[in-house]
Amino acid sequence: MSRDYTFTLEVRYYETDAQGVVHHANYFKYFELARVNHLRSLGHEYADLERDGVILVVNKIACSYRAPARFGDVLTIDIHTARSRGARIDHEYQVFREGILIAEGSSTLACIDRDGQVQRLPDYLVIEE
Amino acid sequence: MSRDYTFTLEVRYYETDAQGVVHHANYFKYFELARVNHLRSLGHEYADLERDGVILVVNKIACSYRAPARFGDVLTIDIHTARSRGARIDHEYQVFREGILIAEGSSTLACIDRDGQVQRLPDYLVIEE
Amino acid sequence: MSRDYTFTLEVRYYETDAQGVVHHANYFKYFELARVNHLRSLGHEYADLERDGVILVVNKIACSYRAPARFGDVLTIDIHTARSRGARIDHEYQVFREGILIAEGSSTLACIDRDGQVQRLPDYLVIEE
Amino acid sequence: MSRDYTFTLEVRYYETDAQGVVHHANYFKYFELARVNHLRSLGHEYADLERDGVILVVNKIACSYRAPARFGDVLTIDIHTARSRGARIDHEYQVFREGILIAEGSSTLACIDRDGQVQRLPDYLVIEE
Repeated sequence: MSRDYTFTLEVRYYETDAQGVVHHANYFKYFELARVNHLRSLGHEYADLERDGVILVVNKIACSYRAPARFGDVLTIDIHTARSRGARIDHEYQVFREGILIAEGSSTLACIDRDGQVQRLPDYLVIEE
Repeated sequence: MSRDYTFTLEVRYYETDAQGVVHHANYFKYFELARVNHLRSLGHEYADLERDGVILVVNKIACSYRAPARFGDVLTIDIHTARSRGARIDHEYQVFREGILIAEGSSTLACIDRDGQVQRLPDYLVIEE
Repeated sequence: MSRDYTFTLEVRYYETDAQGVVHHANYFKYFELARVNHLRSLGHEYADLERDGVILVVNKIACSYRAPARFGDVLTIDIHTARSRGARIDHEYQVFREGILIAEGSSTLACIDRDGQVQRLPDYLVIEE
Repeated sequence: MSRDYTFTLEVRYYETDAQGVVHHANYFKYFELARVNHLRSLGHEYADLERDGVILVVNKIACSYRAPARFGDVLTIDIHTARSRGARIDHEYQVFREGILIAEGSSTLACIDRDGQVQRLPDYLVIEE
């Protein structure tokens, strides 16, 4: 299972705010897109996981910002799976615009069932160290 | 059952876009807030309706815009129930800033059950003509 | 200048709401994406227009909904320019999922300058009848 | 200048996602609301700051989640100013629902001018240690 994936997106107009730049909360939506598309690149659709009762929720997430992004900017997100074991997945993110690092982040997901109870990740999501 | 209700809100920073004004799609979120709070003023919580299997979905909605709104503006929304009968509720909306009409809209909601089938409105939501 | 354009997008997780479907306000964001990409297909970047003082604002917009969309659905949006003359552009939209029409809409944009005054569309955006 | 402030809000329907709970990115919008309202309680409108060329941008932000929030939940946010000096403000946040801590976060804001250059905070925002 590949730990790394690169996802590209374009900044949408409604993602900007009155400062003329992407609102900081939207980077967390970009991270989510990177996770969903990374998973897909590994052959798994997140919608299917949820249908199978494998629900991934964000346990903690963070982002630091170095430079703003604007409407129409093409952003590249490198997502790296630092750990995927037990009931937990750790990701790291780097956001680039034309090769310049503009933001970086990290998150921890927890795997829960339909009743909200923590459960082990399915085998196909586990990375052995 | 009162057909009319006035709801006041304050524009949030993240609701603006790079034009420095509230993004037009957010007015539909304001209309939703007006509906939810109107319902509450009548003694009904929308969350309870959904728990009881009474699900209201937007069938059509429209807005026309006369003047922009900015971060921090206090907006007053007058919501009027034009019709509430059968499986359908029609609302009209007027958005004011300091007494000036800046937008107006209309919507039709359909009442469905948990399987997505159209159902009659519960009696307490019906307005006899 | 081509009046028609087809744009494809994929529903993002955060665009859904607790009913499990795309929140109705997000269709207006999809329409905006269709407009921006239609314009691009004609050789114009909306960011450049704004930099040149050609600002397009939504004057009125509407959508009617026939069926819900869910996370991961691939939606095709047909956008048609019904009129583009004077200071105004009228668009019509149809949203399809696997060939089924799930929503349709319409909008009128007004062309304004940096001071918010209405101005004529630049020649390259005018469609002669 | 008071370092602490408590802000109360109600979860809006469109803030939920298909998991039926508030999408994690929205907590960062709640934190922003807490900052804006804290500032107001101190006699400052953020809109005025921006008009005066005092622009506060998020340099880094984080949140950890203990329990979900749902539509209609009333959330109380305790915001604490840990540091406000030089060109930087550090905040800490705790989000409660009915007295239960459901999330906590932290952020660092940088003060910039209209050209995006870092500048010292205005005196009225400085907290001497």
